[in-house]
Amino acid sequence: MIRSFLWTGSEVRRDLPLPALKEALESRRGLLWVDFEDPLPEEVALLGPDLFGFHPLSIENCIQAQSRPKLDDYEDYLYLVFHSWNRNEEGIRLEEVDFFLGKNFLVSYHVETRPSIAQVMAVLPADPRLVMGHGADLLLHQVIDRMVDRYTVVVDALDERVDLLEDEVLEHPSEGTLKSILSLKRDLQDLFRTVRHQRDVLNSLAREGHGVISKRGRTFFRDVYDNVVRMHDTVEGLRDEVAGARDAYISMVSNRMNEVMKGLSTVATIILPLTFVTGVYGMNFPEMPLLRHPAGFWVTCGIMLAVCTAMFLAFRRKGWV
Amino acid sequence: MIRSFLWTGSEVRRDLPLPALKEALESRRGLLWVDFEDPLPEEVALLGPDLFGFHPLSIENCIQAQSRPKLDDYEDYLYLVFHSWNRNEEGIRLEEVDFFLGKNFLVSYHVETRPSIAQVMAVLPADPRLVMGHGADLLLHQVIDRMVDRYTVVVDALDERVDLLEDEVLEHPSEGTLKSILSLKRDLQDLFRTVRHQRDVLNSLAREGHGVISKRGRTFFRDVYDNVVRMHDTVEGLRDEVAGARDAYISMVSNRMNEVMKGLSTVATIILPLTFVTGVYGMNFPEMPLLRHPAGFWVTCGIMLAVCTAMFLAFRRKGWV
Amino acid sequence: MIRSFLWTGSEVRRDLPLPALKEALESRRGLLWVDFEDPLPEEVALLGPDLFGFHPLSIENCIQAQSRPKLDDYEDYLYLVFHSWNRNEEGIRLEEVDFFLGKNFLVSYHVETRPSIAQVMAVLPADPRLVMGHGADLLLHQVIDRMVDRYTVVVDALDERVDLLEDEVLEHPSEGTLKSILSLKRDLQDLFRTVRHQRDVLNSLAREGHGVISKRGRTFFRDVYDNVVRMHDTVEGLRDEVAGARDAYISMVSNRMNEVMKGLSTVATIILPLTFVTGVYGMNFPEMPLLRHPAGFWVTCGIMLAVCTAMFLAFRRKGWV
Amino acid sequence: MIRSFLWTGSEVRRDLPLPALKEALESRRGLLWVDFEDPLPEEVALLGPDLFGFHPLSIENCIQAQSRPKLDDYEDYLYLVFHSWNRNEEGIRLEEVDFFLGKNFLVSYHVETRPSIAQVMAVLPADPRLVMGHGADLLLHQVIDRMVDRYTVVVDALDERVDLLEDEVLEHPSEGTLKSILSLKRDLQDLFRTVRHQRDVLNSLAREGHGVISKRGRTFFRDVYDNVVRMHDTVEGLRDEVAGARDAYISMVSNRMNEVMKGLSTVATIILPLTFVTGVYGMNFPEMPLLRHPAGFWVTCGIMLAVCTAMFLAFRRKGWV
Amino acid sequence: MIRSFLWTGSEVRRDLPLPALKEALESRRGLLWVDFEDPLPEEVALLGPDLFGFHPLSIENCIQAQSRPKLDDYEDYLYLVFHSWNRNEEGIRLEEVDFFLGKNFLVSYHVETRPSIAQVMAVLPADPRLVMGHGADLLLHQVIDRMVDRYTVVVDALDERVDLLEDEVLEHPSEGTLKSILSLKRDLQDLFRTVRHQRDVLNSLAREGHGVISKRGRTFFRDVYDNVVRMHDTVEGLRDEVAGARDAYISMVSNRMNEVMKGLSTVATIILPLTFVTGVYGMNFPEMPLLRHPAGFWVTCGIMLAVCTAMFLAFRRKGWV
Repeated sequence: MIRSFLWTGSEVRRDLPLPALKEALESRRGLLWVDFEDPLPEEVALLGPDLFGFHPLSIENCIQAQSRPKLDDYEDYLYLVFHSWNRNEEGIRLEEVDFFLGKNFLVSYHVETRPSIAQVMAVLPADPRLVMGHGADLLLHQVIDRMVDRYTVVVDALDERVDLLEDEVLEHPSEGTLKSILSLKRDLQDLFRTVRHQRDVLNSLAREGHGVISKRGRTFFRDVYDNVVRMHDTVEGLRDEVAGARDAYISMVSNRMNEVMKGLSTVATIILPLTFVTGVYGMNFPEMPLLRHPAGFWVTCGIMLAVCTAMFLAFRRKGWV
Repeated sequence: MIRSFLWTGSEVRRDLPLPALKEALESRRGLLWVDFEDPLPEEVALLGPDLFGFHPLSIENCIQAQSRPKLDDYEDYLYLVFHSWNRNEEGIRLEEVDFFLGKNFLVSYHVETRPSIAQVMAVLPADPRLVMGHGADLLLHQVIDRMVDRYTVVVDALDERVDLLEDEVLEHPSEGTLKSILSLKRDLQDLFRTVRHQRDVLNSLAREGHGVISKRGRTFFRDVYDNVVRMHDTVEGLRDEVAGARDAYISMVSNRMNEVMKGLSTVATIILPLTFVTGVYGMNFPEMPLLRHPAGFWVTCGIMLAVCTAMFLAFRRKGWV
Repeated sequence: MIRSFLWTGSEVRRDLPLPALKEALESRRGLLWVDFEDPLPEEVALLGPDLFGFHPLSIENCIQAQSRPKLDDYEDYLYLVFHSWNRNEEGIRLEEVDFFLGKNFLVSYHVETRPSIAQVMAVLPADPRLVMGHGADLLLHQVIDRMVDRYTVVVDALDERVDLLEDEVLEHPSEGTLKSILSLKRDLQDLFRTVRHQRDVLNSLAREGHGVISKRGRTFFRDVYDNVVRMHDTVEGLRDEVAGARDAYISMVSNRMNEVMKGLSTVATIILPLTFVTGVYGMNFPEMPLLRHPAGFWVTCGIMLAVCTAMFLAFRRKGWV
Repeated sequence: MIRSFLWTGSEVRRDLPLPALKEALESRRGLLWVDFEDPLPEEVALLGPDLFGFHPLSIENCIQAQSRPKLDDYEDYLYLVFHSWNRNEEGIRLEEVDFFLGKNFLVSYHVETRPSIAQVMAVLPADPRLVMGHGADLLLHQVIDRMVDRYTVVVDALDERVDLLEDEVLEHPSEGTLKSILSLKRDLQDLFRTVRHQRDVLNSLAREGHGVISKRGRTFFRDVYDNVVRMHDTVEGLRDEVAGARDAYISMVSNRMNEVMKGLSTVATIILPLTFVTGVYGMNFPEMPLLRHPAGFWVTCGIMLAVCTAMFLAFRRKGWV
Repeated sequence: MIRSFLWTGSEVRRDLPLPALKEALESRRGLLWVDFEDPLPEEVALLGPDLFGFHPLSIENCIQAQSRPKLDDYEDYLYLVFHSWNRNEEGIRLEEVDFFLGKNFLVSYHVETRPSIAQVMAVLPADPRLVMGHGADLLLHQVIDRMVDRYTVVVDALDERVDLLEDEVLEHPSEGTLKSILSLKRDLQDLFRTVRHQRDVLNSLAREGHGVISKRGRTFFRDVYDNVVRMHDTVEGLRDEVAGARDAYISMVSNRMNEVMKGLSTVATIILPLTFVTGVYGMNFPEMPLLRHPAGFWVTCGIMLAVCTAMFLAFRRKGWV
């Protein structure tokens, strides 16, 4: 599906026919925004010689999807891949949007509906000048800014998962904890790599002198860049915390096992001397002290109780029990 | 609340009305310092077209707070975010101050009272020329220098915590020690990241040629930069020490558990041979050596004592006990 | 064996005799592609003064094989070493191809048949203009693009091996698992290093201004560069996962052993008190409670059952069993 | 205390009065060296407007001491902080010297006597032209070269400590070993950071074009730079060795504990089957094989010996004992 | 000992007297190679004003030996320190050679005989034009190329040691294995640092525009540079493998110990219930089931066998035995 918007300087016209698109593009006036959502093959053809005439490589990249965030400067336009993060019940999903940014046009390309683009389209009727009246680069900024804003939700959710995990590790570590740690670590490493590339892309938008981005636009992208850097720091911090949680987990599990072994050994070690005493009076010598004594049995029981108490106290003093 | 100070070249006038502020700003003479502390919305408006006319992005950044330390050059002014550290009973808190630095004005913006700004204001009446007579960049230096000085207290406190932790690890490690290590590690990693960004900001102030900073000002910022680098090194060193403490903790706990297990096993291993001896004389053979001997019991006790002593000596020689 | 192809601007002539090769090279028109596959010494001589006159160092490099990916600019030609990955039953094998790229010629050199080169040769008759009609650099791009495409198979296979390994680690770790982890880690580290060098080579092709590569060619190599960077990220991610698997393995094995020890100790610790009870009634005192009682034995058995149950419940409550 | 030396081109005059110092400084001829050792406040004043007129910031830095190695270029002079290492019974101590280097003067500032400066002063009377006849930068080189030479002693001592530690770890690790490792690690990390900064300072002296350093002087500083780089490598190597020693320690301690546990368990495991045999003949069945046999006891003892030997051999074959 | 060779453009003259050396040097024609092997003090003097007039610093460096690989550009000559590796029974030894490279001379300086220099001298009579006819830089290349070639032997030997070590770790780890790992790790770290510096030196020779190296020479040094980079990669890979072997060792030793403990515990745990049964019939109750039964003993033995088998099967099902 294709949606097109043309800002003529005073109003926005929507869903233009092909000839009108061509004319708008060639007039080099106004601002044309064409959004491709899961387009049909004949719609994709508009990216090529039919209308925009983009380089075949960038079109191919667009269609394949699954690229890392990147920015290619083709001089009369920028080709840009950017991701938003979305979080559903299956985990974190990267939502890719491809952009072609020219002096007087912006093309956005994506497979499924993207909330950030839908939002921009939603505010467009209310205040078209704000959205499209400041040039193609600021229109791109509006979309990307919203995409980056959506990170916060995901990062907050991850932060919460890390906090829960740390509690779980310190209170009741189980075998599942290790799986959680490993899976969280992997998620964070994936995000870290994506954010790193996004930071590079935004740095390039904000600082390198691309022809299609005005100086004013660079100021705005610098602001988004700062947001991504903060995200980068946060994800880096979460990674460190997960690594710490992993170490703590190993420590805790090993402690707990040792604790159990210690308890079991203690029981065994207190019983053994008692068994020895019974063994002594089990010997078949005709004469042993106390053997013939009427209270012999009770005295022996007393001795056993004393041994038991003594050992327990000795263990406690040494801090073993 | 807004506080304003105007250095006219000979004296400081305070709390000027809006028209006087406007005039001072436009005359491009003297030095105007406006401090915003938790301002009302109509006061915030002064940052925008009402008075200063700063870029909307930097104003928005100001209001949101919670930024990393950064520096944006808007050519006729610098926008600067800087943090001091404060330490209260809940831990370490970052105190953000935002600055706008122009040729003849400094705007400081913060939510709560900041001690470093209060201090500069306190010395201002005594020697206004020293504080405000050397240009906006040196006034900024006065504030930032005091903010950095306040680090020392926090870093010293952390240093002490690390020392205590190391003692605790080597003398009496407990389960709480691990929590302390993890929490200290997190604090240090957060600080490390902040200091890294602050170092970058100060490096930029001291070495890049920003228009609103004089050559003389750069010399002063270079000095603060050196302080922050020293802080950076110290925090890096503390991080290494905490990592070392963590390793030592794991080592100590594991040693201590092994020690306990060894002790318990030793007791068991000395008792078992004795039990064996009693078992021998518990057998129901009619004829066994010593069985009918009148002192049989005592000889057997002697044998058991000998076995016990021999095993103990053997263990000691092998270094097991 | 040598295969040669000459694009004259309208058609492709194959397997030219030496004089024709010489003439084609000197005319500086058309495009000549010569492919050396495990060549005879007299064929190798064509690389030297006999025909191409390449620098002796690059020829020597070619013949020795086993180089890292690299790119040497000899001004009138580029010498390039590039690898594809192949996966057979023995593991991953690097397949090296050496290239000499000039303005109007491409020389490819390899010991065994390389599928990527065979593929290009296979499509050549069908559409010679597409393959050879756009200059030597785009011909090189065609080959290298196919070489990089072949990575995907290998990387996918590795990805699968890593997934299997992670399952193995968490479900049924054995001693062989450690060997698998170490071998996989080594494979990934080798690949990582190769990809790193390949990335550098492609970066140089795509961004540095080598004389024999046209601006249009650079755009195409930039695309391959992006593929290799993605591969680089993937391999880096796999490395992280294998490191995580190793940690999990150590953790799992240690847990499992502890589990076993705990089980065995539990059995011992429940039996020991029972043995103590039997020891008590094995003592030869003439008078002990219950000894003469007709149901004495059964009462004692009851006591033993009670002790057994009590200990078991106590252990369970403490979470030891 | 202040010591001053003026090289007039033919001889050295010592301890000049203030007017002579002023004149020498202003004449811009000859070479003036003023050494401040724990100076009185009125002597410190010479650094300021009284004589040299250095920037207040550099003077403040000087007085505070405890700076990292650094170099500030104030155009007509360099301010330089450099450390030597000294080793006394309490450990390694950094000895800071601050320098101000101008075209025709060198100021050295330190709190206690510094051997490297004392040495240069000691050779001065013998050959004044060698020491002071080649300009201020080469005089500075003489002092710094001696400061760096003094490292060797400290690094050698550390090297020896590391060697001793490695032996201790592998032969008789004790709890104190861990403390030694941690303390050595901290020392090395501190040194590492200092050397890193010193390397940067010397790199700047040797390679950046500071106005007060001649090309000839840069050659000499490059030589010192190489020494510091070698030191840097050595300290890095020692750090790696200490990390290795730590790993080995943990490994050794854990092995030794396991060894003990194994020994104890073995004893227990050999005794238990014997106890079982005695238990069998302790049963009160009226009829058991061998029970009434005259040599029954001795046969049983033989059986026990056989069991004992068999188990021992089985354990040895499995490599458990 | 000094050996000198003068290429006059048509032949090589050997062992020239001092005046001839001087003349050759000053004529700035031909190529003079002087090799110093463990020279006498009066021979060393030739490096200074007597003949070559090198900078005192570089001569001092030469004599001290034990430098890291480095390159100092003194404009009319390069001073170069380079190492070959040699392997004898005591381990790996670095063999340093110092070079002074001028437009028309090469000075090589070393303490003991160096095989690479001996080889170049050996091929000199056969084909003097090849060795000395292409300028001083290519003569230096010949020597350095041979020095680098000698690495291969050492690296191969190390590779073999690492392979043996890995087998040892996985088949029969002993306490000596840990020592081997630590010593191998140290060797590799030393080599790694040397190779890193050598790579830098060769990079400088191949890429920076030193006056005394021709463009043609740079091509040749680039080739050696590639060899060293490959060596660098190999040593880095070996380091990773040794780190992996260390981890595997710790894992294996810990597994093996656990294995032993498990075995011993199993024996104990099977014997204990049997002992309990014997204890039961050792009790002195006048009436117990089976006690008076003629086959009582044999039934009891059967019960014990059944218990034994049941426990063994239970253990096996749980995977404990």
